[in-house]
Amino acid sequence: MRPPAAPTSARQAARRIRILRAASELGSREGLAGVQMHEVAKGAGVALGTLYRYFPSKSLLFLAVLEWHIEQFLGGPERGPERGAPPQWDADPVTEVAETLVALSGKLLGDRLLAAAVALSSFTEYASVVPTPIDIVDRALGQRLLCLLGDRPDARSRVRLLVYGWWGLFVAMLTEEISTEQGETDLRLTARLIAAR
Amino acid sequence: MRPPAAPTSARQAARRIRILRAASELGSREGLAGVQMHEVAKGAGVALGTLYRYFPSKSLLFLAVLEWHIEQFLGGPERGPERGAPPQWDADPVTEVAETLVALSGKLLGDRLLAAAVALSSFTEYASVVPTPIDIVDRALGQRLLCLLGDRPDARSRVRLLVYGWWGLFVAMLTEEISTEQGETDLRLTARLIAAR
Repeated sequence: MRPPAAPTSARQAARRIRILRAASELGSREGLAGVQMHEVAKGAGVALGTLYRYFPSKSLLFLAVLEWHIEQFLGGPERGPERGAPPQWDADPVTEVAETLVALSGKLLGDRLLAAAVALSSFTEYASVVPTPIDIVDRALGQRLLCLLGDRPDARSRVRLLVYGWWGLFVAMLTEEISTEQGETDLRLTARLIAAR
Repeated sequence: MRPPAAPTSARQAARRIRILRAASELGSREGLAGVQMHEVAKGAGVALGTLYRYFPSKSLLFLAVLEWHIEQFLGGPERGPERGAPPQWDADPVTEVAETLVALSGKLLGDRLLAAAVALSSFTEYASVVPTPIDIVDRALGQRLLCLLGDRPDARSRVRLLVYGWWGLFVAMLTEEISTEQGETDLRLTARLIAAR
């Protein structure tokens, strides 16, 4: 996965959100192959050249869509009472990690066409170039998990394993290699094995 | 990952190995982009049409190369005294799992161009089509890990997590997102967390 271009002004940030929203709507309706960059530009009310300045390819655009949906999920109202609450450093984070991963997968898989679009973009982006080495621990999901795991010397390594496990199970559920029920059971096992103190 | 076509005769199996060997040699020298299918056919001593009957695309060919290298590694002389030995059902499999994953990564990363070729092929294959749902637990590495884990109700789920962790760390080492030293430390942590009784 690659980082979105950092917005340098509020106007640019707002334009970026408009693009991500238009891409999400089209991806959800048409699937990745059916999305045309000029339709995204039209939907977002920007020029095609502007769209390409923000996102040089469709796969980079949909990688940013994935990251944006994860950020929205982590900050969104469905987080309930934990939203913004300080981490409980002494609590065992297993349940919180498990429910975060299960709920995030459920949220993404609730829109199969969009879920397939972001997964395909991730594979395409990895296949098309030598990917920029971005530490997944520094992305939105990684940071949330790091916060939940609390202060331990191997926390970053455990976060990495949680993200790999989550992503593998997410793709396996998406491609129906395993059932959603099995995937959720395995996500809870992942949390129990990797996040336990 | 996809399964190689099942060989239906000894002659076909031998031809398949010649193709995989020729692809490995070319991939190791030229990298994925530099490999031409007609060069593979020439190196293997088969007609181009025959090559395409075995492997309809370059990415399917290099996925089979990955699987073949894993099978060779697991069955090869570098396994030392454990080769062919029955699993120790009562032993804790952590060390054996850890050393298998570390040694496999080291073996593959020892040839960076070929390692990149098989990784890129895996991403390309996932991105190009809806992948055939193949249970990774039923592939060579999955079967070896299942054997090491022994008889527990959640063994298949743990094997799945071990494979996801291994693959994620392998790609992270390959792309230099993390150092080889860090990757090996994390592979041992993976084994400790997931394979422990």
